Amino acid sequence: MNKLLDNINSPDDLKKLNIDELAALCGEIREFLIDSVSKTGGHLASNLGVVELTVALHTVFNVPQDKIIFDVGHQSYVHKILTGRKDSFSTLRQFGGLSGFPKRSESDCDAFDTGHSSTSVSAALGLARARDLAGDDFNIITVFGDGALTGGMMYEAMNDAGHVKTPLILVLNDNAMSISKNVGAVAKHLRKLRMSPVYFRSKHVVESVLKKIPLLGKVSVNIIKKIKRFFRRLVIPTTMFDDMGFTYMGPVDGHDIKAMIQCFEYVKDEKKPVFIHIQTKKGKGYAHAESNPRKFHGISPFDIATGETKEGSETYSSRFGSVLVNLAQDNDKIVAITGAMPDGTGLEEFEKHFKNRFFDVGIAEQHGVTLSAGLAAGGYIPVIPLYSSFLQRAYDQVLHDVCLQNLHVVFPIDRAGIVGQDGETHQGIYDISYLSHMPNMTILSPATLGQLEEMLKFAINDFNAPIAIRYPRGGTEADNIPQDFTLGKAQLVQEGNDVTIVASGRMVKRAEEVSALAGKSVEILALPTIKPLDTEAIIASALKTKHLITIEDNVKTGGMGSMVAALLEETHTECEFKIFAFPDTPITHGTVEELDKLYGLDAIAIASKIQEL
Amino acid sequence: MNKLLDNINSPDDLKKLNIDELAALCGEIREFLIDSVSKTGGHLASNLGVVELTVALHTVFNVPQDKIIFDVGHQSYVHKILTGRKDSFSTLRQFGGLSGFPKRSESDCDAFDTGHSSTSVSAALGLARARDLAGDDFNIITVFGDGALTGGMMYEAMNDAGHVKTPLILVLNDNAMSISKNVGAVAKHLRKLRMSPVYFRSKHVVESVLKKIPLLGKVSVNIIKKIKRFFRRLVIPTTMFDDMGFTYMGPVDGHDIKAMIQCFEYVKDEKKPVFIHIQTKKGKGYAHAESNPRKFHGISPFDIATGETKEGSETYSSRFGSVLVNLAQDNDKIVAITGAMPDGTGLEEFEKHFKNRFFDVGIAEQHGVTLSAGLAAGGYIPVIPLYSSFLQRAYDQVLHDVCLQNLHVVFPIDRAGIVGQDGETHQGIYDISYLSHMPNMTILSPATLGQLEEMLKFAINDFNAPIAIRYPRGGTEADNIPQDFTLGKAQLVQEGNDVTIVASGRMVKRAEEVSALAGKSVEILALPTIKPLDTEAIIASALKTKHLITIEDNVKTGGMGSMVAALLEETHTECEFKIFAFPDTPITHGTVEELDKLYGLDAIAIASKIQEL
Repeated sequence: MNKLLDNINSPDDLKKLNIDELAALCGEIREFLIDSVSKTGGHLASNLGVVELTVALHTVFNVPQDKIIFDVGHQSYVHKILTGRKDSFSTLRQFGGLSGFPKRSESDCDAFDTGHSSTSVSAALGLARARDLAGDDFNIITVFGDGALTGGMMYEAMNDAGHVKTPLILVLNDNAMSISKNVGAVAKHLRKLRMSPVYFRSKHVVESVLKKIPLLGKVSVNIIKKIKRFFRRLVIPTTMFDDMGFTYMGPVDGHDIKAMIQCFEYVKDEKKPVFIHIQTKKGKGYAHAESNPRKFHGISPFDIATGETKEGSETYSSRFGSVLVNLAQDNDKIVAITGAMPDGTGLEEFEKHFKNRFFDVGIAEQHGVTLSAGLAAGGYIPVIPLYSSFLQRAYDQVLHDVCLQNLHVVFPIDRAGIVGQDGETHQGIYDISYLSHMPNMTILSPATLGQLEEMLKFAINDFNAPIAIRYPRGGTEADNIPQDFTLGKAQLVQEGNDVTIVASGRMVKRAEEVSALAGKSVEILALPTIKPLDTEAIIASALKTKHLITIEDNVKTGGMGSMVAALLEETHTECEFKIFAFPDTPITHGTVEELDKLYGLDAIAIASKIQEL
Repeated sequence: MNKLLDNINSPDDLKKLNIDELAALCGEIREFLIDSVSKTGGHLASNLGVVELTVALHTVFNVPQDKIIFDVGHQSYVHKILTGRKDSFSTLRQFGGLSGFPKRSESDCDAFDTGHSSTSVSAALGLARARDLAGDDFNIITVFGDGALTGGMMYEAMNDAGHVKTPLILVLNDNAMSISKNVGAVAKHLRKLRMSPVYFRSKHVVESVLKKIPLLGKVSVNIIKKIKRFFRRLVIPTTMFDDMGFTYMGPVDGHDIKAMIQCFEYVKDEKKPVFIHIQTKKGKGYAHAESNPRKFHGISPFDIATGETKEGSETYSSRFGSVLVNLAQDNDKIVAITGAMPDGTGLEEFEKHFKNRFFDVGIAEQHGVTLSAGLAAGGYIPVIPLYSSFLQRAYDQVLHDVCLQNLHVVFPIDRAGIVGQDGETHQGIYDISYLSHMPNMTILSPATLGQLEEMLKFAINDFNAPIAIRYPRGGTEADNIPQDFTLGKAQLVQEGNDVTIVASGRMVKRAEEVSALAGKSVEILALPTIKPLDTEAIIASALKTKHLITIEDNVKTGGMGSMVAALLEETHTECEFKIFAFPDTPITHGTVEELDKLYGLDAIAIASKIQEL
């Protein structure tokens, strides 16, 4: 039934269609997207919002010669469909299939890999300077959401780009939502611009204003000149984007394909930094997504008719959220900070119950962490849950602003370890390595939901220094571990004589599985505290079994196993030793099970290695 | 002779002085500063610029109840002098003495520790929210330079602060220099504001403008209202800071103490976010510093009459700079990026010779790194020298934008290891730990200037992936190491039978010193390549001597020694083993020698440990 879409195999095919056909094509793309993502899961709402925008871009510009960079990257589905990847779209986010993000290795139409927010203008300016040095002539376009504008890197890049005046086209896809509702002063500025009747803000505005002043025609030319000059200085520039050296244009209706094509045609040859403000509706064209864009931001497979996903079981995120609400009822010093992700991190209820103790800083992890440091210095207990791959954006702030001052900030690290379908840019496998060397930092990791609860209570009420609690996506729990928790103490999950498995977090469950398969007497030592290590328990068990392996959901270098290795080596503890962890190579997308298996971290692989010891 | 200053023991004493006396006091403070810093070294030019500003702040506000946060912190000398630390000022930046940066542990007048740029508004907003939740009422003031405005965190924080409307006083110390000349569109915006005659930009401006329109008095009230509304929308806000929710005031002459006191008195009770633009002259009052503020930004002890410092010997920074110029002459793909530090990193000559291939992004390491990724994707070879403690501000960009895409970006890491007098916030002892787990990353470290040269040639011309070269402050060289370099190969500096020392960078020289003292037959294995390790050479030497120690200028956890430990442990290589590295505790200020000794990394301490093996 998708007659038009069937014939679109490259952006060139778009250029043969008239406006009505392009509009009809957009309808077909929406159907295709809804149908496909309902089966694979993925980022639906944002892609439904940029259908016309992406079609208009590819109608006017020519990739791969022109470069289009999609900030954050999860809104590149339509781009992928239009650039020859329609037929493999059913493999989206699956092991061996299409990535859910732009990948240079996947297509020469993907100009730059993205995944984290607010990087696109920096990358675009790099490509622009390379273009200028090489004497080339093509267009570079970045597409970013209003959420990306809350990230400081955007300003660093705009400050640079607006200054050098090299041609660059910035397209703001403004849906007034970053992931959830957008926040901040700039969002307010955008709201004001959205309500403004002025289309092209330029000196023409001044002229037209002056014409509207009655009787002005009657005064002397000299006075008019003076007034004009005075006004011009006051009136131009009128937006903060003009202030930063860009020519602001907009707002343009992001579902009016004709208006956008006109706009892009106009700027194509402008040869200067341009900022185009496009207004779109997140979830556009699918009622369930329009009415609940937060839910449909990133969604697992769902029923098209009802919009329902399969009800999942309890996760670490949701347990975190409910425990925090309970603790906050008794302790009014607790405050929560989020980087635009109250839903993903389980803070919805906290937000509802403690509005004045809840701070959404936007996609601004750096500011969020130092804000937390300030709150701690002011006598409060900030809890700032972030995904592992996003906390790394605030590495310096954790080290410089929190740890060096030994401030009591609680870092629940969600999505620690392999996250699965989001792939390379989102794998949370670096946090042990990037936190363990920080002064004054303590690192915990629960093996069950109950342990998370105990740890959170401890970290908030019984501790007074920087502390991180890392837990995985989902709700994997170990079977036989006691639910209690003592700082710095390992837990003997199972006694054995032949080999010791030291594991933490999600991998304690894996140790139990390995034990069932290994055909040896396995001792399992869980590390609820990764830093500081329980050196005594580890050495004692190593001396007892003479064989010790570690399993962790982190890269090997700088990880838990490496810390255990240094301990055993320096204490000259005699035992055979092996680390099971992820290698320092980009880890692709796929299910957690597939990726564990790919890197030899599944129970069968580990059990067979144990037999070789 | 400093009659006034002698009697200033706390800010309360300032409040007894009249304007003339305050102005005279400023002169005395300048003399005191020049005299003192000429002996200790330190950040002179920026402190000379903020004498009146700091005196005015302390005259109007009351610390410690009111909080003043100094961004970057190196311009807090006057603040220290005025808050009871005048008599210990001669110990500045010396081991056991005053820190060159604000420290909460040093005085309750220091509201928040700073050292890296652009953190102050985030911290201030945290303190403000804590104040509001607690129902307190005091002022929070941040003082930051125009350089700090190039850092994205400032915008993240202003976006948040401007939105919530809690009282907060931002003071921009605009000297039109960050560290060297300031860059970017915002700097341009500031230049425009500096030339503007408008003092308080507010609705009063609109009124006064309207009054100036001739004949307007004669038209109907209704039309006037309409015009007013139209103008107000266009005219207010007029600066990008107003756009972000702040009330902009300025520019104010930063050497006119009366004007500043009036301004601060006015905003003290304003109860809203205010942005005050103060204009100062970097180096003010000392001719040598005024004419060469870049040199006097951070300076070693100097002669007051001539402004001359002792001529230093060649450093890794200067060698880096001269080699890069040579390479760039033959390879027009080489481009250099700096984060506001062309001098510190040795890029002055490159800047002169290759203006169009040199990009100063401001204090914006995140953007700088991703810009480099874009340049690499565009076919150029970006070289981005950053201090170790500043590269960590771009951890995510190195990992996400460079390493995951395996782009050829060259990271010369200057000031790697202990930096000395700048202390905690500037110690470059984390980079091995934060880089070694990154996919596709290679880490080199020269033991001599000649090796740096070889490595740089290799990294630029013979390599095609992310590569870091870490080297220390100064020019410490090993004595007996060959100057050549082969990727991944250890170098046998000295053969021996009793114990192997594995060392890298500056610590190869230390290994030589240890060997001379140890009274044992020492084998020295230098690692010009830290990642990947030369596993074969290390294992072979460990098996030969049966005793192996590692020495590195980095923290222990996740460092070179830890990697060697994992290697020896996993390969079950029999040997006694010990890691010599810095602990994960904040490392204070002092000379490199003092700090090495404090942590048992001096030659005598290591030699004595070797004797115990």
